[in-house]
Amino acid sequence: MPLTWEQFYAENPPPSDLEQTRHKVENFCRKHLDHGSRIVLITSGGTTVPLEHHTVRFVDNFSAGTRGSASAEYFLEIGYSVIFLYRLKSIEPYLRHVAGAKFLDMLEVDESSENPTISVKSSEVQQILPVLRKYKAAQESQKFLQVGFTTLSDYLWLLKTTCEFLPSFGSRAMLYLAAAVSDFYVPATQMPTHKIQSQDGAPTIQLDLVPKVLQPLVSLWVPDAFVISFKLETDENILIKKARGALSKYKHKIVLANLMDTRRSRVVAVTPDDQTEIILTEEQTQQGLEIEKCIVDYLKEEHTKFIVGSTSQ
Amino acid sequence: MPLTWEQFYAENPPPSDLEQTRHKVENFCRKHLDHGSRIVLITSGGTTVPLEHHTVRFVDNFSAGTRGSASAEYFLEIGYSVIFLYRLKSIEPYLRHVAGAKFLDMLEVDESSENPTISVKSSEVQQILPVLRKYKAAQESQKFLQVGFTTLSDYLWLLKTTCEFLPSFGSRAMLYLAAAVSDFYVPATQMPTHKIQSQDGAPTIQLDLVPKVLQPLVSLWVPDAFVISFKLETDENILIKKARGALSKYKHKIVLANLMDTRRSRVVAVTPDDQTEIILTEEQTQQGLEIEKCIVDYLKEEHTKFIVGSTSQ
Repeated sequence: MPLTWEQFYAENPPPSDLEQTRHKVENFCRKHLDHGSRIVLITSGGTTVPLEHHTVRFVDNFSAGTRGSASAEYFLEIGYSVIFLYRLKSIEPYLRHVAGAKFLDMLEVDESSENPTISVKSSEVQQILPVLRKYKAAQESQKFLQVGFTTLSDYLWLLKTTCEFLPSFGSRAMLYLAAAVSDFYVPATQMPTHKIQSQDGAPTIQLDLVPKVLQPLVSLWVPDAFVISFKLETDENILIKKARGALSKYKHKIVLANLMDTRRSRVVAVTPDDQTEIILTEEQTQQGLEIEKCIVDYLKEEHTKFIVGSTSQ
Repeated sequence: MPLTWEQFYAENPPPSDLEQTRHKVENFCRKHLDHGSRIVLITSGGTTVPLEHHTVRFVDNFSAGTRGSASAEYFLEIGYSVIFLYRLKSIEPYLRHVAGAKFLDMLEVDESSENPTISVKSSEVQQILPVLRKYKAAQESQKFLQVGFTTLSDYLWLLKTTCEFLPSFGSRAMLYLAAAVSDFYVPATQMPTHKIQSQDGAPTIQLDLVPKVLQPLVSLWVPDAFVISFKLETDENILIKKARGALSKYKHKIVLANLMDTRRSRVVAVTPDDQTEIILTEEQTQQGLEIEKCIVDYLKEEHTKFIVGSTSQ
């Protein structure tokens, strides 16, 4: 039998710096609660599942973190406070625009004075300047908090901890659960201590199901919040059915359903009674638009309706 | 039965840009062959093993690429031509010194003139300047070629292809095989096309052994070269025994054996008849020295003896 979520938290220890992070999140939330703004918790990137206690090998989920990091920028632009819970080394907001470029190639040294200076080459300034300005603006607004994780277990702990501080926002809190969380893991009790040896023959890895924390999250941790989950599949035939299955099981508000191959240009927002296609045309893509802007604009409208509906009840 | 190395190459297609890479490697080798310098092929980073054809999940090997990328810098410093075959997104030479820092935090905009300029903050210049100078020097020397890969299969193809151009260097070629290559993989024929579904219950992943290409590499591809492999274990009791086992099986020159927990301060260079400890003291670590410098200095000496021995035969 797979563990319940309560058993999972009982058997898997929290990250060592959990208390520090709790403190940071609490301060951040308290500050923005006073200002009455909306808040969104974005999760982003994949999770790793160690196969050994001394981790040499692990099972990873594909996710560069593009969806989450792009969305964070658009949520900040329209005034949300953003907690960005992201897999370390996955793509980060703003930084993503310069991540492909080689940092050192962009720089040049001016040795002409006694104290050498280093500048960004003039040919690169045009590209970096708008990114840098937006980044500095986000920093100055203090509306942006990044919290990093690596393993599945750390992710689940940080998600639960962050959720402690969202109920005071009521319906003004949104959860945008874009991280690709592993469905499977190797329970600590079944994990070998040392590296699996290849002379023992090819190993079989027996994985266990990860408990679905979306269930306690929606019903217990943040019952008044506007919760969005994602469904990424490779098979079109099961996509919408699976999205609706998740909604009926977990009772949250929207599943953003997408296919691996077309996820940059098409997302279907599935609600219990309806579905809305969010499409980026070829032309829009060529103009440099991103589908995350369309997603965030759509969600802002839906969130407004949700807040109004919650208040009038 | 696991596949032979010939079967592996027959069943797993090469990366789509293999011919382009072959061309680059060929040009690089031809240029440096004329100059009579020593050459080292360094492999670095982990490999991923896809679990599905549309890859959502994969098994990965832990390796940040620190060993390979640091060693590349030291090999360049002592005059070797360096081919750096590395896992994309793993640590790169020179860049590694600034990878922890946030690029955008280091920069400031000067808006005072009509054309804004971007500079590295003066507080950061001291840290970046030496790295930037070394990086520019390596670029100008044209002795440094980077070739990237992600999957196990791409790695094995690129390794074999690069080896085509090393025999003309004779004993002046070194192979420094620091990449953490997966021992196991899911054969293409047994891989599901679509994402494994969690409603089917917790899956069992049956892995196959990866053929050891060190065998054809040493005996067929680069028979005159100075070949170094690595052994990383978590259990001290089997480390040296496994290193010697590899030497007797593959007939290469040196295994650099290290333990996960102490790999930054202790490496044992194991030869068929001898073993040499390479140790970095606590004091040296605090002075900012890296064990890779000691390893490279040791290997340079051994390589010299090897070249002299080969020539006098």
